[in-house]
Amino acid sequence: MTNKKKRMVIALGGNALGNTLPEQMQAVKITSKAIVDLMEEGCELVIVHGNGPQVGIINNAMTDYAHHIQSTCLTPLSVCGAMSQAYVGYDLQNSLREEFLNRQLTPPPIATIITQTRVDADDPAFTEPTKPIGTFMTKEEAREAAGERGWIVKEDAGRGYRRVVASPKPKEIIELSAIRAMMNDGALVICTGGGGIPVISEGNHLAGAVAVLDKDLSAALLAESLDADYLFILTAVEKAAVNFGKPDQKWLDHMTVAEAEQYCREGQFAPGSMLPKVQACINFAKSGKGRTAMISLLEKAKEALRNETGTTISL
Amino acid sequence: MTNKKKRMVIALGGNALGNTLPEQMQAVKITSKAIVDLMEEGCELVIVHGNGPQVGIINNAMTDYAHHIQSTCLTPLSVCGAMSQAYVGYDLQNSLREEFLNRQLTPPPIATIITQTRVDADDPAFTEPTKPIGTFMTKEEAREAAGERGWIVKEDAGRGYRRVVASPKPKEIIELSAIRAMMNDGALVICTGGGGIPVISEGNHLAGAVAVLDKDLSAALLAESLDADYLFILTAVEKAAVNFGKPDQKWLDHMTVAEAEQYCREGQFAPGSMLPKVQACINFAKSGKGRTAMISLLEKAKEALRNETGTTISL
Repeated sequence: MTNKKKRMVIALGGNALGNTLPEQMQAVKITSKAIVDLMEEGCELVIVHGNGPQVGIINNAMTDYAHHIQSTCLTPLSVCGAMSQAYVGYDLQNSLREEFLNRQLTPPPIATIITQTRVDADDPAFTEPTKPIGTFMTKEEAREAAGERGWIVKEDAGRGYRRVVASPKPKEIIELSAIRAMMNDGALVICTGGGGIPVISEGNHLAGAVAVLDKDLSAALLAESLDADYLFILTAVEKAAVNFGKPDQKWLDHMTVAEAEQYCREGQFAPGSMLPKVQACINFAKSGKGRTAMISLLEKAKEALRNETGTTISL
Repeated sequence: MTNKKKRMVIALGGNALGNTLPEQMQAVKITSKAIVDLMEEGCELVIVHGNGPQVGIINNAMTDYAHHIQSTCLTPLSVCGAMSQAYVGYDLQNSLREEFLNRQLTPPPIATIITQTRVDADDPAFTEPTKPIGTFMTKEEAREAAGERGWIVKEDAGRGYRRVVASPKPKEIIELSAIRAMMNDGALVICTGGGGIPVISEGNHLAGAVAVLDKDLSAALLAESLDADYLFILTAVEKAAVNFGKPDQKWLDHMTVAEAEQYCREGQFAPGSMLPKVQACINFAKSGKGRTAMISLLEKAKEALRNETGTTISL
């Protein structure tokens, strides 16, 4: 199959989806406009999205329900992650179809694919879980949860106690062949939501892992695996910057991989915020010549693709 | 694309998935064996499944959570339906992959596709909702829910009050082109779970409907739309019967559409049980020559395909 379109994996951040369902139903409309814009610019797209607030709500609801009603059956975090992919994917695919129709375009096949992502059982993240999830607990509730459910709990900046889980590195997108086949058919695929459902290989079995993934790192792995031209991380800032918030702050139009790695070593990017995004960009840009990673605002996606704004990273 | 394989849509009933997550994780292993058996017999498959207990658990959990924590934001039934597709699909795709590997076969692309099914806003079912969902309520709770949430509630056989919703007829599988493309690529697709997320067309918009669908009727529509050779309804009985439970009970090996319609008129099949299955079979068998609908046990799927057991319906 010959195809001259540029292949792009988009990673949607929290601002593209909002924190609650009503917010999400509004946000996906703006997000859909940006996505269809990119397709009209001649890109073929795969969409990856975050799931922090969504998997939080679902996990809280399912845990409370199990606690109150049927305490023998807690829904594992992996299953909650799967559910969050549908919770987001349904709204997004619904809204994308509508955006194509509003532009009097025939929608391509649009599909949300439930995706598993393999992680290593011996990833060091599992020995030192750091990602807080779920509701805040009192000290006593935390002790109970640790005892009854085997949760690892930590105090969270004086606001109470929360469960913490590991955030291991994504190693393999299990549904890659399905995603690739759909893409080759011209479909618009939504997949690897929340970075994918984390699973660990146990012989032929893939076991759900107690973990959350970084969606940008998973999107970079997916982009590399699909031999994409672009990884595009859409977020709440227009560009990355060095000396951020200081008098000599400098917005970055472009970084080579070597420059980006140097900035990371200097501590230029905030951990848990810009740093993992830049790291995901480095991973993808490093994986082959002609691969460009971009960071920009959702609302300026088209302009960034035209090189009018945003930060690009390439070899 | 030429393909001599027989195209089949399978509809999995409650016994293929169980009522709780631990039951589901066991049940999908047996279900996966039956499905891979059918593929080894030379079928290309699309899998549709029910979601009664699953959407019930999810809907209860999300409703309780909204009630206790954030009462402004109830999760609509449509979103709960989407989540149930992932709740089941994740376990099923995970287990299917494992079954292929256990047989030393390379798994095909396997994907769960979140699916919307269009229903008509003026379907008479909406004026007379009959399907109970969610937990039992006291009379007072029922009155409250009716007032605050606009729910329609009915007394359920002396066991308390429950919300009732409509079960309209499925009219169109929105993600059909994606499902067809995946199937043409040799993928094993899990889709239209719970009969699909019911949506109503409002101009270019598809609005989630307060409804549940009959998964067998949706499977029949999907089979017709995919130009399938077979619709196979896997359930808890080996064959359909006339005069069921009476001295002259007769198991049926085959019915013509005309015979099946006659039996339906005679009231031979139990409403809410065998009747909708036979009606789904009639719909599919009637839709074209050479189309065969089958009803049999999950565990005897291979034998039924070989015509050794089960009930078939054709023109």
